[in-house]
Amino acid sequence: MNKANQTLMNAYVEKIEEQLLKFTAEKPELQGVVLEAMEYSLTAGGKRLRPVLVLEFYRMCGGDKLDEILDIACSVELIHTYSLIHDDLPCMDNDDYRRGKPSCHKAFPENIALLAGDALNSLAFEVIANAAIDGRISAEKAVMLISVLGKSIGTEGMIGGQVIDLQTENEMIDIDTLNTLQGCKTGALIEAACVMGVILAGKFDMIPAAADYACAMGRAFQIVDDILDVTGTFEELGKPIGSDEQQHKNTYVTLLGMERSEQTARQFTVQALGSLKYFDNSQFLSELTSDMLTRRS
Amino acid sequence: MNKANQTLMNAYVEKIEEQLLKFTAEKPELQGVVLEAMEYSLTAGGKRLRPVLVLEFYRMCGGDKLDEILDIACSVELIHTYSLIHDDLPCMDNDDYRRGKPSCHKAFPENIALLAGDALNSLAFEVIANAAIDGRISAEKAVMLISVLGKSIGTEGMIGGQVIDLQTENEMIDIDTLNTLQGCKTGALIEAACVMGVILAGKFDMIPAAADYACAMGRAFQIVDDILDVTGTFEELGKPIGSDEQQHKNTYVTLLGMERSEQTARQFTVQALGSLKYFDNSQFLSELTSDMLTRRS
Repeated sequence: MNKANQTLMNAYVEKIEEQLLKFTAEKPELQGVVLEAMEYSLTAGGKRLRPVLVLEFYRMCGGDKLDEILDIACSVELIHTYSLIHDDLPCMDNDDYRRGKPSCHKAFPENIALLAGDALNSLAFEVIANAAIDGRISAEKAVMLISVLGKSIGTEGMIGGQVIDLQTENEMIDIDTLNTLQGCKTGALIEAACVMGVILAGKFDMIPAAADYACAMGRAFQIVDDILDVTGTFEELGKPIGSDEQQHKNTYVTLLGMERSEQTARQFTVQALGSLKYFDNSQFLSELTSDMLTRRS
Repeated sequence: MNKANQTLMNAYVEKIEEQLLKFTAEKPELQGVVLEAMEYSLTAGGKRLRPVLVLEFYRMCGGDKLDEILDIACSVELIHTYSLIHDDLPCMDNDDYRRGKPSCHKAFPENIALLAGDALNSLAFEVIANAAIDGRISAEKAVMLISVLGKSIGTEGMIGGQVIDLQTENEMIDIDTLNTLQGCKTGALIEAACVMGVILAGKFDMIPAAADYACAMGRAFQIVDDILDVTGTFEELGKPIGSDEQQHKNTYVTLLGMERSEQTARQFTVQALGSLKYFDNSQFLSELTSDMLTRRS
């Protein structure tokens, strides 16, 4: 990334992480532990890709009151974090590590981790509604945002993808099914993030272009994730290498092989970059998107 | 209940149960199992008290388009059902039965039950937002409803109460802590239901009276629940008798004794009935509230 873009990225991440801390700042004595668990997972690192996408689409569409919509941008990170906490639970992937740290249910009792995820889920929607009640966004925008976010994480989106993943765990699936699975499981929330940025800026005619970008970018992102799971090291990824493979998961690498996976990721990246031509000031996001192909963690 | 009130109650429950079925009507092939799990728990019976409260406060405040707000009234039942599914999980109360039927995680794999609860949680908010997008309610009302509902089930509401419950499981607590615990765990969502009915009807000045009613009624409801857990039979309650006691739970009965619990429930019922005098046409809700004292399941 060039220096100007890196500066923007750093500024985004700093603001996002400041905001994330605010959600759990108050910890009532009796139930404080669940807020600690929420904070533990919210501050466990990660690329903050989803809130960055909200903020960047907002900016590309002419939005210039970033501080007023920061908590809304972070609502997608609340959702992402809830999904990671629940994904790691013993009855799901049973992962003891996440980003090099003990998973939430290893750092806290399992029932507290479950409830921390539940609380993050509904908090995301409450945050958006409250921004409208405060007058920072219109009520009309808030209901659009909530509808888009809700659909993206429901049975036709993230949850649907997780279920398809579980249902096909020990069987070989075809590439179309894997595309559906991943499009739901990770693609839908990424698309929601991009579309939410556009809605926040009020440039509703740009929603289809944002969705096109997100579909291609989300696909590339997932393929690279699958590739990294095979080639990365524990230190870089924060989880045991090949952990997906050991559990007989269907991944782009196991279905397409490494070479075709890399090729396909490149194709989708080119497609994503093409969708960005409809936006002004897309240099930052273009570079971020290209960088994703060469990321190592 | 007198015949007219019973007819109204039956009509409410019939409409609510029709609506609940609509939420899960479409079941995509690959992820259909999670919609089956949601439907299983949504149709497992129960008094439907929370959506009835939404509808009745709406009606008492002059609302007369019940069919247009039915899905919103049911959003509180989506939340209630999600909370029951997650409460029953092995890492929480580990209950194999709910209302005389196997719990969701006994009828379905545990991970599907977890995800069914997650999907119901976010669906509740999506449903309210979509009612505004459809033009059935104003966006302003929708954000108020979502804010009220979100707060009631978050760390200061339902989740907070569940955490206090878990944190104090094996210790004797005082009555103030039990009041906080129950006020959060069950009272907050009941209050949200009553307030949401008022918001839907647009009679915002009646919100405090609805909240007063709900606080007193919720308290009475929980005490009666605790009493029934000791005195009920498996057949009537659909779960093993004394199951709460066996797990060393703090209940009104274990803290106050049976006689004072019954007395306190009566006092709160009188207080709840008093709050209803601010509403016209409160005969139905008055009778429902009184009946709660003598319910056997």
